[in-house]
Amino acid sequence: MPHRPFMLGIAGDSGAGKTTLTKGIARLLGEERTTSICVDDYHKYDRKQRAELQITPLNPECNYMDIMEQQVRLLSLGEAILKPVYNHSTGTFDPPVYIPAPRAVQEEGRLIPRAVILEGLLTLFSPAMRERYHLKVYIDPEEKLRREWKIKRDVAKRGYTPEAVEADIERRMPDSTGFIRPQKEHADIVVRFYRPEGYDPDNPGTLNVKIKLKHTLPKLNLTEVLHSAYEDEPALIRLEARKEADILDITGNVTAEQAATFERIVWEQLGPYAQHFNPDLIGTFWDKGGQSYPLALSQLIIAYYLVQMRELAIRKGVLTYA
Amino acid sequence: MPHRPFMLGIAGDSGAGKTTLTKGIARLLGEERTTSICVDDYHKYDRKQRAELQITPLNPECNYMDIMEQQVRLLSLGEAILKPVYNHSTGTFDPPVYIPAPRAVQEEGRLIPRAVILEGLLTLFSPAMRERYHLKVYIDPEEKLRREWKIKRDVAKRGYTPEAVEADIERRMPDSTGFIRPQKEHADIVVRFYRPEGYDPDNPGTLNVKIKLKHTLPKLNLTEVLHSAYEDEPALIRLEARKEADILDITGNVTAEQAATFERIVWEQLGPYAQHFNPDLIGTFWDKGGQSYPLALSQLIIAYYLVQMRELAIRKGVLTYA
Repeated sequence: MPHRPFMLGIAGDSGAGKTTLTKGIARLLGEERTTSICVDDYHKYDRKQRAELQITPLNPECNYMDIMEQQVRLLSLGEAILKPVYNHSTGTFDPPVYIPAPRAVQEEGRLIPRAVILEGLLTLFSPAMRERYHLKVYIDPEEKLRREWKIKRDVAKRGYTPEAVEADIERRMPDSTGFIRPQKEHADIVVRFYRPEGYDPDNPGTLNVKIKLKHTLPKLNLTEVLHSAYEDEPALIRLEARKEADILDITGNVTAEQAATFERIVWEQLGPYAQHFNPDLIGTFWDKGGQSYPLALSQLIIAYYLVQMRELAIRKGVLTYA
Repeated sequence: MPHRPFMLGIAGDSGAGKTTLTKGIARLLGEERTTSICVDDYHKYDRKQRAELQITPLNPECNYMDIMEQQVRLLSLGEAILKPVYNHSTGTFDPPVYIPAPRAVQEEGRLIPRAVILEGLLTLFSPAMRERYHLKVYIDPEEKLRREWKIKRDVAKRGYTPEAVEADIERRMPDSTGFIRPQKEHADIVVRFYRPEGYDPDNPGTLNVKIKLKHTLPKLNLTEVLHSAYEDEPALIRLEARKEADILDITGNVTAEQAATFERIVWEQLGPYAQHFNPDLIGTFWDKGGQSYPLALSQLIIAYYLVQMRELAIRKGVLTYA
């Protein structure tokens, strides 16, 4: 009998920080209790063919969306998959990799559904995928930041020149606008990093974050707690209830102590389920080893919702085991 | 709405002639109306790893049987798959290939389920796969013939020396016996090529064939027709009704005229469904372009059952379309 996992879908444009966000969430939940997958390898064409066809990987037409949808569905049903692998160095395809069935995890004498985190450019694109996630996140940094991050990464990890990356960003812009950004509407949580005044690019730890918590999320205790906890410090961590969503605003100037208090409050809300949380190393950005409290707290908030919603699903019998 | 195809599973040991048999059936049905897939690429290990682990690809433990079963199931549900590819030249894996959804075919104003032919070493191994096929075939040549064929192919197409192939056959023997041959029990049709007295290996067209038609097959007109058609020529094409199966025995000495008569009788049984049959080139063995009537007639018999059983399935509403 396969085990149905808890499905978290994370979408965002190229360079938006999906992998960084995912890594912290997986660390919080325990990497060995989590299956994290990048769902960007379903291209129909290799780099050369894409250049000939003048099509970008952001375009669903450039991807086997049917297979992407199928594999998301199979994982949600608790099955193993053989995932295609696109090689960013060669621009062609490698042999596929086996992703074992996302089996539940023994925890305190009971079985807890494994968390499957699927991140990618088009993870929230089609209804067939969206209906498979229990929680949907869109990561939406200020465009200037995203470009900065994408250039840094593609130069360091994928061997491009900054000019080539910039040209690529421009070429992709119509598809970013047409296919990637509209996914934001379908997310339960939208994470937006933005620059404070006088922002120094060499110190990304000072970035602010605005986390939109839409009313598609279940009403959990968190928002109330945050209201009362932070009403005295409006400048650093602020929660604003709006008609369409609650907005949590965290500045990069938050102190280590304030971040720790925030962490503790979230922790307490999780009650017994917090014990396996591993807060070390969350908030680590890029691979410089720098740390950002707004990033760490974004990861924590998403993990909080994941754990609470998973408990609700277990109680409702949506995710049960033989 | 996906279209459910008609699923034919063909199993047999390495070198038994699965590909040759499959090609003729696909030609009869029309290659553009058929999806033929070799299901031998689900290895967990490449050649080097298999040598280290001393495991052969015949062993289910050497294969992602879960993925094999999953992809057979997905095809049977009318879905596309991304099939892994094992490269016999390099002994490692290539990028996977996209197999489009096996959509039904327009024929005389109605939709006919596409035939999906899955051939491989372990296609009939597990219940999860067997329950997906509408028709199951095992190809079981005399062991001496199989060795001869395997050596010829592996030397010509896969770059081995005859000695290396023979050593490989010996090494695989326990797994042949343990995993491959028991599949015969689950087949509806067992095709056995065997040598006549004084057989000349350079003239494989003279081989005889014995086709076992088990009673798991629906009672179709064919057996009765064959009884009456061939009772006068017992030496060349003979049908024998036994308790466990009907045995059709065809000698390699059958003349072109006799083979043509046999073809015509089968054809007539198919009535209107025969019109798309394309008998050219069936019975072609190996890639020398030689032709064998017993091979051609085996292909024809299997195609006959496929077409008739597909009609039954359509009439019963098992394979219907929106």
